[in-house]
Amino acid sequence: MTRVFNFSAGPAALPEPVLRQAAEEMLDWHGAGCGVMEMSHRGKAFTAIIEQAEADFRALLAVPDNYRVLFLQGGATQQFAQIPMNLLAGGSADYLVTGTWSKKAYKEAQHLAAPLGGVVRRAGSTEAAGFNRLLRADEMALDPHARYLHLCTNETIHGVELGTAGQLPASDVPLVADMSSHLLSRPVDVSRFGMIYAGAQKNIGPSGLVIVVIREDLVGRAAPGTPTVMDYKVMAENGSMLNTPPTYAIYVAGLVFRWLKGQGGLTGIEAINARKAALLYEFIDASDFYESRVEPASRSRMNIPFLLRDDRLDAAFLAGAEAAGLTQLKGHKSVGGMRASLYNAMPLGGVEALVDYMRDFAARHG
Amino acid sequence: MTRVFNFSAGPAALPEPVLRQAAEEMLDWHGAGCGVMEMSHRGKAFTAIIEQAEADFRALLAVPDNYRVLFLQGGATQQFAQIPMNLLAGGSADYLVTGTWSKKAYKEAQHLAAPLGGVVRRAGSTEAAGFNRLLRADEMALDPHARYLHLCTNETIHGVELGTAGQLPASDVPLVADMSSHLLSRPVDVSRFGMIYAGAQKNIGPSGLVIVVIREDLVGRAAPGTPTVMDYKVMAENGSMLNTPPTYAIYVAGLVFRWLKGQGGLTGIEAINARKAALLYEFIDASDFYESRVEPASRSRMNIPFLLRDDRLDAAFLAGAEAAGLTQLKGHKSVGGMRASLYNAMPLGGVEALVDYMRDFAARHG
Repeated sequence: MTRVFNFSAGPAALPEPVLRQAAEEMLDWHGAGCGVMEMSHRGKAFTAIIEQAEADFRALLAVPDNYRVLFLQGGATQQFAQIPMNLLAGGSADYLVTGTWSKKAYKEAQHLAAPLGGVVRRAGSTEAAGFNRLLRADEMALDPHARYLHLCTNETIHGVELGTAGQLPASDVPLVADMSSHLLSRPVDVSRFGMIYAGAQKNIGPSGLVIVVIREDLVGRAAPGTPTVMDYKVMAENGSMLNTPPTYAIYVAGLVFRWLKGQGGLTGIEAINARKAALLYEFIDASDFYESRVEPASRSRMNIPFLLRDDRLDAAFLAGAEAAGLTQLKGHKSVGGMRASLYNAMPLGGVEALVDYMRDFAARHG
Repeated sequence: MTRVFNFSAGPAALPEPVLRQAAEEMLDWHGAGCGVMEMSHRGKAFTAIIEQAEADFRALLAVPDNYRVLFLQGGATQQFAQIPMNLLAGGSADYLVTGTWSKKAYKEAQHLAAPLGGVVRRAGSTEAAGFNRLLRADEMALDPHARYLHLCTNETIHGVELGTAGQLPASDVPLVADMSSHLLSRPVDVSRFGMIYAGAQKNIGPSGLVIVVIREDLVGRAAPGTPTVMDYKVMAENGSMLNTPPTYAIYVAGLVFRWLKGQGGLTGIEAINARKAALLYEFIDASDFYESRVEPASRSRMNIPFLLRDDRLDAAFLAGAEAAGLTQLKGHKSVGGMRASLYNAMPLGGVEALVDYMRDFAARHG
């Protein structure tokens, strides 16, 4: 068995120790005589698993007591609908559009606004700039009476990240943030947000699980016609178990949380992530062969799109990378070029190997 | 490692060869250099996995060409909402209530009927009889103009199964059937149904996956306000991949389908399932110590609730069973007593061991 360095944007590489433990426990979890996939979600064993997962997640992210943590299904895409169904409450909501994912969230909210008897506004967009930077304050027209302000703090496709609290929009309305592709990669001040959500398949675990962190006062406003299973209040009251949750995905996420604690928690992993991203960006910026078109202050540590200045070499670059055990580097079809996703599970050695390959490829083709 | 005989109603036991293969491939699927959890859902490897899974599922169930097979999230509970959102279309729908699960489906449809501008009728119920048998034809008041007629063909909690086509209600409206706890346990004539759905965590795979089989002419009627990700048409057009699907659950389901083919497909597994259920029912019926309160012609092969005539012995029965490696036999809290779920992955030897234990327990306490 040879493991590659897998730069997939998601589903993405998971820590090897997590996968080894999951494999070892597949047929028999802690002497239970069956694996986690085979356990009743209402039994003692799985109850212990989900409670530990939530406790570890809360500890890692320092989630305040007045926030609920929900383990749900349907991914961020289902949340794009679930958010207005639960929070629009016949009012108006603002959306900041800074890349493909926040645009999708906005479009879904638009699709639902009229049936929900509410209004959805695009309160700012960088689309005209090609989504290559964060929004500036003077580009936003925020409604102080909005029910919520939606934003995506890391755009997986365009590689734009809102990384610090100082970059948050100045607004007193509840911020609702799609953090799918950078949650748990760095500390976050949860208290600055009304709600945070993230599909698991980047830094958390397998696809099929989405984590919602929501302030208690925002729970309980679902519109009539909201499916019961999509009502945050019902799910909060039932400990995410109104129905059978995605048990195995929650178990693997729990293993990832334990692994992350062993990396020094979010402060520890942030230091590694910053080093990994700096290594790649510095190499690209120093090169005449490659380029990043994202403005430096807006660049994501997690998803790094880059271009070969001569795109006729793209196919050769990808084939050589694959042969060198550096996989999933092809950029999203909507932007072209390359993309290296450097999630928590990507070791520094993987980025070093990528930079070595890129240097060598440039020398051979430059 | 000692594997128990796990009688859980779901999530439930999976075939050991499936779990072994999943464990072996956890870090490296077929030389890909990464595991299935870590693969992009748009890549060649996962595309092959989901296509093979669908092909095997279609072959097992002999799904006609004019039906779409969808791999979705949210379980049967989300389908309880998704069905009226997609199929009610401002009309009326009939629901047959024959146990906890069909009652839940009916209640959710009721919850959504007014916001959807439609009507939902309870067209028959065995609740007064304690859900201990199938509905009789003279107990149904069917609307010939209903958009659809919903039924649950195997009630997991009450142990009532509609197993043969002759037991289906006489109706020309599309039948929509929750088959969560017996799909793939026996052949089904799919052409008799407008739609079939099943949560995976019984006979199919891990929780977090629900399979929908829907006739093409029923696709494309979603009400305004239906989340895009819950619109069958959009999901059908996108091959279940509008968004990231639950990739690992689909992969495990695919392994289960291959295993099932090795068991002689649905005809082969049905013969084994019939033998397993007969063994347990015959023992119970011949006993003065245990009893089944489900009418013989209505009894499920998959979920067998039974009672100790002296319920003061329940705790001792369960403790002794646990010690003998026979787990998860406690009945659902709403009905009490015991329940043995004999899904496909339960070997005949497990049922023999259960009957031996029950005989011995009765001899010691009778």
